Amino acid sequence: MHLKLDISNALSPPAALDGIPPSTLTELQPKLTEAIERLKQQRQQGNAPFLDLPDDKETIELCRNAATRSKNFENFVLAGIGGSALGPYALFRGLAHPFHNLLDASRRQAPRFFVLDNIDPDTIDALFDLIDPARTLFNIISKSGSTAETAAASLVIIDALKKSVGKKWKEHIVVTTDPEKGDLRQLVREENLEALPIPPSVGGRFSLLTPVGLFPAFCLGLDVDNLLLGAKAMADVCLKAGPRENPAVLFAALLYAFDTQCSRPIQVMMAYADRLLPLADWWRQLWAESLGKRLSTDGKEIFVGPTPVKALGATDQHSQVQLYIEGPQDKVFIFLEVQEFERDVPLPSAFGHLSSLEYLGGKTMNRLMAVECSATREALTKAKRPNMTLKFPKVTAAALGEAFMLLEIATIYAGALYNVNPLDQPGVEHGKILTYKAMGRKGYDD
Amino acid sequence: MHLKLDISNALSPPAALDGIPPSTLTELQPKLTEAIERLKQQRQQGNAPFLDLPDDKETIELCRNAATRSKNFENFVLAGIGGSALGPYALFRGLAHPFHNLLDASRRQAPRFFVLDNIDPDTIDALFDLIDPARTLFNIISKSGSTAETAAASLVIIDALKKSVGKKWKEHIVVTTDPEKGDLRQLVREENLEALPIPPSVGGRFSLLTPVGLFPAFCLGLDVDNLLLGAKAMADVCLKAGPRENPAVLFAALLYAFDTQCSRPIQVMMAYADRLLPLADWWRQLWAESLGKRLSTDGKEIFVGPTPVKALGATDQHSQVQLYIEGPQDKVFIFLEVQEFERDVPLPSAFGHLSSLEYLGGKTMNRLMAVECSATREALTKAKRPNMTLKFPKVTAAALGEAFMLLEIATIYAGALYNVNPLDQPGVEHGKILTYKAMGRKGYDD
Repeated sequence: MHLKLDISNALSPPAALDGIPPSTLTELQPKLTEAIERLKQQRQQGNAPFLDLPDDKETIELCRNAATRSKNFENFVLAGIGGSALGPYALFRGLAHPFHNLLDASRRQAPRFFVLDNIDPDTIDALFDLIDPARTLFNIISKSGSTAETAAASLVIIDALKKSVGKKWKEHIVVTTDPEKGDLRQLVREENLEALPIPPSVGGRFSLLTPVGLFPAFCLGLDVDNLLLGAKAMADVCLKAGPRENPAVLFAALLYAFDTQCSRPIQVMMAYADRLLPLADWWRQLWAESLGKRLSTDGKEIFVGPTPVKALGATDQHSQVQLYIEGPQDKVFIFLEVQEFERDVPLPSAFGHLSSLEYLGGKTMNRLMAVECSATREALTKAKRPNMTLKFPKVTAAALGEAFMLLEIATIYAGALYNVNPLDQPGVEHGKILTYKAMGRKGYDD
Repeated sequence: MHLKLDISNALSPPAALDGIPPSTLTELQPKLTEAIERLKQQRQQGNAPFLDLPDDKETIELCRNAATRSKNFENFVLAGIGGSALGPYALFRGLAHPFHNLLDASRRQAPRFFVLDNIDPDTIDALFDLIDPARTLFNIISKSGSTAETAAASLVIIDALKKSVGKKWKEHIVVTTDPEKGDLRQLVREENLEALPIPPSVGGRFSLLTPVGLFPAFCLGLDVDNLLLGAKAMADVCLKAGPRENPAVLFAALLYAFDTQCSRPIQVMMAYADRLLPLADWWRQLWAESLGKRLSTDGKEIFVGPTPVKALGATDQHSQVQLYIEGPQDKVFIFLEVQEFERDVPLPSAFGHLSSLEYLGGKTMNRLMAVECSATREALTKAKRPNMTLKFPKVTAAALGEAFMLLEIATIYAGALYNVNPLDQPGVEHGKILTYKAMGRKGYDD
């Protein structure tokens, strides 16, 4: 196990004056034990397939093979939204060069990577200013096969390809969708397009380790094998360990208790590494869409759900930390801390007569980052702002795999505590119907 | 005036069932009238200089002239954090090509633009993989001249320049800092560096229209003149209009009332345009750091401040809207809506036998974006989630200038309502001191 969850500043006492008393965890224990048991059962019955994705050798090899031809392309454009975009992007930013798209092709050794996860006409049209469709592979991702935003992007993409390469447009598209159902799958059949399956029982926000995330990751040359090993190892820990030693249980139970018993509904995930900010963004969808619910599992109106917020250290010390330290006691903090960066950046000694430069000389940027993370954590704790820290020894594929799985399982456990179904999203239907109606989709005219 | 603030879904009744009753605005009116009068007085006494930045011809011309030589550089690297980075970046993303850095130099007609606003060693070191210091202009921005993160970046930058161009390193640096005080200013004097002034009485988060924002904007070829005209026009409106017709007053008063009287402390600014997301991020600092305060102006412990959150439409409909629609009634929404994008993207008719593609053919991506914004707004309103909309006819320099000034003045008015000083940030001192101590800065050893 690479990751470590440090909850000492979330428990009260000794460290945090305003933390959760240990008795609260004891009270939650029966519910948590039950949640673990239920997830184990669901797994055995094949009803929690996201847990077993690391063992789906067949699909993994399908993605690996499909990716071999991506080397021929200068660009890889992913068209998808929500779970179809956030996970792949978090992987890309977590593991690729921070300025991947700006590197020379020889250094990059993989296509440039673009995510079209919005329908902003300026962005989409501008993308075609710089990519040549003839040198681009488009990965169209939609689980249902009918997502409006992705459907619209597909029309633009296919049109651009046809204008550029004529009948060969099909060689530039890989569709990731349901193996049987939906309009995208039908298009795949009719046009004989290359396609990859998303298991029907894996929800969009739990789909990172399906071809949704794996195919782009292989195309980008990322270390998928260790990603999967990390996820698998974490799944074992989070299903086998008892409530007190189980990081997914502790993560879920503490955040649940802070929200429902301590009036701290705002949960800030503050990444102290640029690479990890998109992981926080991925978690923001997972947590919000899974737990933000009107109805309980037994059909009562409850209107629950914490509000996840992403933040970046040290940057947001100069934007949000004033509020975090001095504002209302309505927040809890999850630090993502990296103990060893990929690179070491020494701070040269220069202008030693200037006091604001002198103390930095001879140290490293790495040390400054570590110190600022500790200082912010200590200042928050002293100001009675509870917090926990998820420690990454290094941002490796294995550590990321652990993080994704830890947070997915924590979401299931949190769903059990909130007594909601973490796998649906009924609240977005109204907006969808209004959109269809205004766009004149058949069957939505009244 | 280009912008329009539509508050109909924030008032109760008729549109919003859970909005602010008009009587609340009436009750706040004396305080608001007083806040407007006070700001007018402060302006006359020279104590609100951020309002008059659009008239500071001398500084504007200084920036314009200093920028002429930027054409000789391939890269422009801004090293700054907080207010020194968020504003310039919001301007860049608001007005430049969405993929500016990836365009050919001939099409770009300006240097590539990089913002170093963190101390992540991986990012900083990686930047030097792709920029040649000999072809780069570095703009080092720190109002105090002693910001730790910017100081550390400066040491790395100057070292890289010395290794690359030797004694000519000074020709690659422009320092933006206090005109008299601080270590950076001393460095400017001793090394005879080019420098631009930040007026001492303009706080970092109100400094966008000082050389902090203007110099990079000129270097990038952005339309600074119209930016300033927009800001000036909005300042006039927000100082002269009575409380009922004053967009800054309405923005501040409604958000204040939602927080303090309706238990809606979470304020989501949801931009329906990729270009405007960094504006929401800039506002996030402005609002959080100005209003998140432990002490009232008369020294009482009050621990106030709403929590600003940024979101992106349509993207976050697939991430956050489930929570926004069905979660707790603890949020209010500010839509940033664009009525005309720069580009039109038609959706070709194709695969008309597939129902999820058929209805899109013959429409435009622009229409889909507009429809999704309206649909989400309507769905939120129906779910009793109050919201308002700031409408941009187009994202122009003038409209952005109006937006920046509107939000800055609204922050001052909100400060008056919360009874806090919107111009300080005492809460970040503890973390700074802990950082200095751990880094061994002299005078901080006990």
